[in-house]
Amino acid sequence: MDKFEEKTLFRKPVFSGKIIQVFVDQVALPSGETAERELVFHPGGVAVLPITADNKMIFVKQFRKPLEKVTLEIPAGKIEGRDDAPLKTAQRELEEETSYQAKKWEKITSFYLSPGFANEILHIYEAKDLIFVEEPLPQDTDETIELFTLTLAQAKKEIESGLICDAKTIFALYYWELQQILEK
Amino acid sequence: MDKFEEKTLFRKPVFSGKIIQVFVDQVALPSGETAERELVFHPGGVAVLPITADNKMIFVKQFRKPLEKVTLEIPAGKIEGRDDAPLKTAQRELEEETSYQAKKWEKITSFYLSPGFANEILHIYEAKDLIFVEEPLPQDTDETIELFTLTLAQAKKEIESGLICDAKTIFALYYWELQQILEK
Repeated sequence: MDKFEEKTLFRKPVFSGKIIQVFVDQVALPSGETAERELVFHPGGVAVLPITADNKMIFVKQFRKPLEKVTLEIPAGKIEGRDDAPLKTAQRELEEETSYQAKKWEKITSFYLSPGFANEILHIYEAKDLIFVEEPLPQDTDETIELFTLTLAQAKKEIESGLICDAKTIFALYYWELQQILEK
Repeated sequence: MDKFEEKTLFRKPVFSGKIIQVFVDQVALPSGETAERELVFHPGGVAVLPITADNKMIFVKQFRKPLEKVTLEIPAGKIEGRDDAPLKTAQRELEEETSYQAKKWEKITSFYLSPGFANEILHIYEAKDLIFVEEPLPQDTDETIELFTLTLAQAKKEIESGLICDAKTIFALYYWELQQILEK
């Protein structure tokens, strides 16, 4: 560790928002030189691969302001509080966004999205044995979403069309394809 | 699009760094309500899956300040200038970080890492037919890195150990496994 570690000499807070906090660190490099690091702190999130009984996946269509476009993504959301366990968050997000609960949950992996500047981590779950909920948890009031249920082949076409364009969803499709091949 | 679009009413710049710029937008939602969006703008980057003649992958060990830990990742880097084509950036990063050039380049995909708050895009390439360069492009002066060449099985163990923990590298391993199965 010592050989690589960058020790913080000074941390300057530059922005504190509702979702992210931004800092600029002056760090001491292993070489003895100093450098600046721009850091975004984020509470982390969850994403869900909801697989239906007829082997389709449920996707959420929504507008993404940073991209100024509509995307198709697997259901996902931020971890809200300090005591909000990732699996609980995943179960809440699935119900809020799709009106489904799931009887079978399996953790796939967790990964950091942009380790060069952000500490955001995403915990990814597979949800099977879906049950439609008549009176689901209400959606977030600032979200306008629409649901699509696609086969693997249909979803892969939406990578080509550009509608599916984010890391967690493209990862989900490769994971799903690999699982289907391994299960054969 | 109209049904989903969030129109910017007011954009407030809150931080302008060397790598990221941060803004807070007041947006008009499709419902007519207003909401705030925290936005991180990033120049985007590239990542490379360097596959050796004996079917191993080259990884870079480095310290990641936002995570306060050492990670093992596929070679990657930021797009530096407006005219810096992603493939050119990928070729430069591979040589700077690993001292290899590659004769065979293939685009795998591009994805946005965190479409909820950031516009960072990553372009991912497979590099084969590697040639060791005696006098490679110099490394960035503020990077301390070490190289590891691993089989798929060895790399998967490093997901379990936590050393491989980021989206692009975990995606790369699933992609690589899928390719190996499909080529059989």
